[in-house]
Amino acid sequence: MIDLRSDTVTRPSDAMREAARDAEVGDDVYREDPTVNELERRAAEIVGMEAALYVPTGTMGNQAAVRTHTDRGQEVLVEEESHVFKWELAGLAQHSGVQTRPLDGGDRGVLTAEQVREGYVEADDHRPGTGLVCLENTHNSKGGTAIAPEYVDEVCEAAHDLGVPVHLDGARLFNAATAIDVPGSRLVENVDSVMFCLSKGLGAPVGSMLAGSEAFVESARRVRKLLGGGMRQAGVIAAPGLLALENRERLAEDHENAERLAAGLDGIEGVRVPQPETNIVVAETDDPAESFVAACEAEGVLAGTFGEHRVRFVAHLDVDTEDVDRAIEAVERAVA
Amino acid sequence: MIDLRSDTVTRPSDAMREAARDAEVGDDVYREDPTVNELERRAAEIVGMEAALYVPTGTMGNQAAVRTHTDRGQEVLVEEESHVFKWELAGLAQHSGVQTRPLDGGDRGVLTAEQVREGYVEADDHRPGTGLVCLENTHNSKGGTAIAPEYVDEVCEAAHDLGVPVHLDGARLFNAATAIDVPGSRLVENVDSVMFCLSKGLGAPVGSMLAGSEAFVESARRVRKLLGGGMRQAGVIAAPGLLALENRERLAEDHENAERLAAGLDGIEGVRVPQPETNIVVAETDDPAESFVAACEAEGVLAGTFGEHRVRFVAHLDVDTEDVDRAIEAVERAVA
Amino acid sequence: MIDLRSDTVTRPSDAMREAARDAEVGDDVYREDPTVNELERRAAEIVGMEAALYVPTGTMGNQAAVRTHTDRGQEVLVEEESHVFKWELAGLAQHSGVQTRPLDGGDRGVLTAEQVREGYVEADDHRPGTGLVCLENTHNSKGGTAIAPEYVDEVCEAAHDLGVPVHLDGARLFNAATAIDVPGSRLVENVDSVMFCLSKGLGAPVGSMLAGSEAFVESARRVRKLLGGGMRQAGVIAAPGLLALENRERLAEDHENAERLAAGLDGIEGVRVPQPETNIVVAETDDPAESFVAACEAEGVLAGTFGEHRVRFVAHLDVDTEDVDRAIEAVERAVA
Amino acid sequence: MIDLRSDTVTRPSDAMREAARDAEVGDDVYREDPTVNELERRAAEIVGMEAALYVPTGTMGNQAAVRTHTDRGQEVLVEEESHVFKWELAGLAQHSGVQTRPLDGGDRGVLTAEQVREGYVEADDHRPGTGLVCLENTHNSKGGTAIAPEYVDEVCEAAHDLGVPVHLDGARLFNAATAIDVPGSRLVENVDSVMFCLSKGLGAPVGSMLAGSEAFVESARRVRKLLGGGMRQAGVIAAPGLLALENRERLAEDHENAERLAAGLDGIEGVRVPQPETNIVVAETDDPAESFVAACEAEGVLAGTFGEHRVRFVAHLDVDTEDVDRAIEAVERAVA
Repeated sequence: MIDLRSDTVTRPSDAMREAARDAEVGDDVYREDPTVNELERRAAEIVGMEAALYVPTGTMGNQAAVRTHTDRGQEVLVEEESHVFKWELAGLAQHSGVQTRPLDGGDRGVLTAEQVREGYVEADDHRPGTGLVCLENTHNSKGGTAIAPEYVDEVCEAAHDLGVPVHLDGARLFNAATAIDVPGSRLVENVDSVMFCLSKGLGAPVGSMLAGSEAFVESARRVRKLLGGGMRQAGVIAAPGLLALENRERLAEDHENAERLAAGLDGIEGVRVPQPETNIVVAETDDPAESFVAACEAEGVLAGTFGEHRVRFVAHLDVDTEDVDRAIEAVERAVA
Repeated sequence: MIDLRSDTVTRPSDAMREAARDAEVGDDVYREDPTVNELERRAAEIVGMEAALYVPTGTMGNQAAVRTHTDRGQEVLVEEESHVFKWELAGLAQHSGVQTRPLDGGDRGVLTAEQVREGYVEADDHRPGTGLVCLENTHNSKGGTAIAPEYVDEVCEAAHDLGVPVHLDGARLFNAATAIDVPGSRLVENVDSVMFCLSKGLGAPVGSMLAGSEAFVESARRVRKLLGGGMRQAGVIAAPGLLALENRERLAEDHENAERLAAGLDGIEGVRVPQPETNIVVAETDDPAESFVAACEAEGVLAGTFGEHRVRFVAHLDVDTEDVDRAIEAVERAVA
Repeated sequence: MIDLRSDTVTRPSDAMREAARDAEVGDDVYREDPTVNELERRAAEIVGMEAALYVPTGTMGNQAAVRTHTDRGQEVLVEEESHVFKWELAGLAQHSGVQTRPLDGGDRGVLTAEQVREGYVEADDHRPGTGLVCLENTHNSKGGTAIAPEYVDEVCEAAHDLGVPVHLDGARLFNAATAIDVPGSRLVENVDSVMFCLSKGLGAPVGSMLAGSEAFVESARRVRKLLGGGMRQAGVIAAPGLLALENRERLAEDHENAERLAAGLDGIEGVRVPQPETNIVVAETDDPAESFVAACEAEGVLAGTFGEHRVRFVAHLDVDTEDVDRAIEAVERAVA
Repeated sequence: MIDLRSDTVTRPSDAMREAARDAEVGDDVYREDPTVNELERRAAEIVGMEAALYVPTGTMGNQAAVRTHTDRGQEVLVEEESHVFKWELAGLAQHSGVQTRPLDGGDRGVLTAEQVREGYVEADDHRPGTGLVCLENTHNSKGGTAIAPEYVDEVCEAAHDLGVPVHLDGARLFNAATAIDVPGSRLVENVDSVMFCLSKGLGAPVGSMLAGSEAFVESARRVRKLLGGGMRQAGVIAAPGLLALENRERLAEDHENAERLAAGLDGIEGVRVPQPETNIVVAETDDPAESFVAACEAEGVLAGTFGEHRVRFVAHLDVDTEDVDRAIEAVERAVA
């Protein structure tokens, strides 16, 4: 089976496994796990922020960020296909008591400064004020689009002019950085917090980082405890996480594989695939997505439905060029 | 001063005041206030529903309805300019823990069956399910548009096919009914609950009704208590409310006055006013709305800003044809 | 029927009814209802606070106060039989997201400074901090006990030393003041906010007041809107409320009637009644409370169960000395 | 340093580290991690329940359990020193919207059937109903008391008679089972759900289990996602967790060490230590706990303050008999 459903399926490398075995650990609730501390220090450094917090999942990172930035009864501007709005079980309302005001980021999921200014609501006796803008980069539901730093900066400037902080869901931040060819830190230069995943393309088995100012991270740490994310000897999973941080450069391979896959699939009758920006390939299929995916599975390729006639394939570190070529052939057989 | 800011400023008639004085009362928390009981019975009858509940405000009625229909962590489809989304302090997130998914109802604030079907989300491991559709008729922010029953029916059918109930914010339900020339009950034939105000154009000093099935109202009654809406000898305000119910027919006068006002204002240089559908007149002004409104006030007319170059005037029972003519002249002076 | 179930059943006097009829009104959401404004001014004056807010019910007043004083995730110290904990549908958790830590106020429901100091929790990484102390005076569930100002002061001092504000549920504040023979203002000299009811013994048909500092009331006003308590021409019910404020002195009559009733009931075989402190009489009955209450009803007296062998009778302005004597005779017949 | 602050500081054994390295993994969000699946199967088997769920922390397990069992606006009966009430940041109010009603479990933290029956509240128009009883075994704050199955059964019977489910916080369930000499499954025979930690005395680096019926665990799984606990290749930490399950028998050693430590400390002037029931030793100290703990640290022993004159020492698998003897001597020096 070639598993292209998601880069969440990546398995830890041997080096990561060794690192897990050998990790120096302590009780992280007491902040005494040296590996976690090192991971948090290193992650903050990489994104150019004061501090970072290790969290078991990206969802927890996003939800803790929103809760930390906002007061209950505010509004949050989100892209209408963004993960935080679409796939996190209405956590914004549940954990933070905030109202969502989704904005249409178009084909690539890019919010503009103008949308932020227009979507902004000033608090008064009847209206919840805007408390936060959430961005996502790369944008998963839009097919892994990599949003250039200028767009991010412009949204941040507009938001900050209005006194509103910006959180970036950077689950695949380094895919964006790789595609645009800037350091990850450039993409978060003006946001107030960023969450990025160590799992997914970077290959760690478990965990994400939430970074921001020291004061922000200190507050988010308490929210993490509230959400049940205060783990003990987390060094065992932080150690592979440290290695995952060094996997940023190899994401370029995934992007090449994705491009190769897209080109190959696009050659198949009844399948249209635009060139991917990063590691996510979204195919438009004449067949209904569900039967298409089932047929692929029968031929040894796992993909995911992504709409009624849309199927998602994701390149990741457990898939090499040969797998890609085999996958293309398998899909060809599946369609035939 | 001619007060055209809103129909919320209407004052009770002498008959209503007499009714307040003479009301037979009891403790409504024990369900022993005969006037409240009569009002609830009569209100249910008028909208053709099993039961109704007296609440101190339309906001409480809407919020209690949403809380009664939904489970926390669901999604609610709302029109993006609707009152329940825009003007109720993010109550949906706060009281009900639900996520808002606003839909664009266009110039008239009309949601379509297709939008409901597309906006619908099926609950799964990651996604909150859609728990409710909220409609608004007349639609305040769109200028008091009166939405025809066929549109309401079509949305209800789509929602019900998906197992989703529909709540109607009918704060000005009888304005819609009057404009369309159907009984109010026709407009709620297929919705699962409706809130309508006794104050506003019907002229009661305080209070709104929330109607639905007996089971729904029974649950909503407990939510009303939770929200702090379980009043005691409420017959004093229910009695004027009963008279307000008989004011439905006279809303036609407000609509005529609104039309007269719109025509008059539209004749003024720098002011463009489309023909109103009900009692709300929205003027586009060359001048910024704020200074326009201030100038009107200086000439004896109160209006409300409704956008940067939009001003709202509302006809209601404390304004007669003569007032309208005087108001037009005053605005003319204000603009000059 | 002599209705002694509660002082919530009191009906407005003729003067109140006239006042309702004649009230000068405006739209209170715009703060333009002169009668509401006058009521808020006068209520603040009477309790010696900067400002006051008119709310439709005592529950809304209490819940708005807690929400205004606290942050979500704090703890609130409450007396374990207090109304805000016991009878308000877990509103503290629901509206404010705070955890309740009930303390045992003994026979009279009096919390002590020591209990506050011991119950106080300092916020840290694991523990919610104490955000508020709630008191109740008179204490309803303890039989209308009137808590002397020294006890209130001592709790306030302890709380304030810890940086914790104090809210007083003074639904029957003036019963306490009357019993102790101090002005109501003396009982709230050191609390940060107080809610008191205009209905109950003061006889208004609807409404309560929430008083505190100007900043507090300003915040609470927004919470009132969120809860659906922002009424329009509320002068109609504020006017009787103003008269209710002048009923404070007459509560002494209720206390005399309660004492007379208690003495009379205590003379009945199988019934033991301690001397009441205010207007609430709690009888211990040999018979189960439910059948006792049913038997009383059959003889023309309404009372309320208050435990398995406890029955509550409440004196109020619709009951005079003659009614009391007739009630005693009726209960005598009921027990026989 | 001999670290006796908590059994949360235990470090994974070499075997656990090897297991982490060698774990077969998959994406647990897709339920494809064979090691997690095996851990969940095995954990359920051990406690004799239908199903179990792996969660990153005990706090998440408890909070997910409460949320799954209750509806918002209910009441939960908790022991007044229990972890779920005291140390989880008011999560019950925040995640579940439920009100806490703490009961006094006495010296050993044991709730009785009578307390449950008395604390039970039937839902009505004003009162939140009781939705859950939470137990804790061993009871941490009471010094690791091991509550006999008969007591648990009796509370469960009382609760179930009232239609109320019971959740057991069994963070140290197997310490209780060891002390009482019954299988862990015996202690949860009648509860509806149990959370127990793989970390703490069992030695896993990360993770806890939440067990119950299949339907319960299915619902809790969605809550886990909402809370941000849906990890990916969690097999890396589940593998040591599987070994931790086999550490249940060795808890007897910790108990012996605790007893030895208690006896030794009790011999020191100014220190009184009752015989511990499990692995937690609570010393009453003449000196203030803070300075006592500081003095111990200076002598090479870490302990925790547990009250103003109470200090907690916890035996665990990283401490052997020799460490215990050295610790006693160190404390002796510290006190002198």
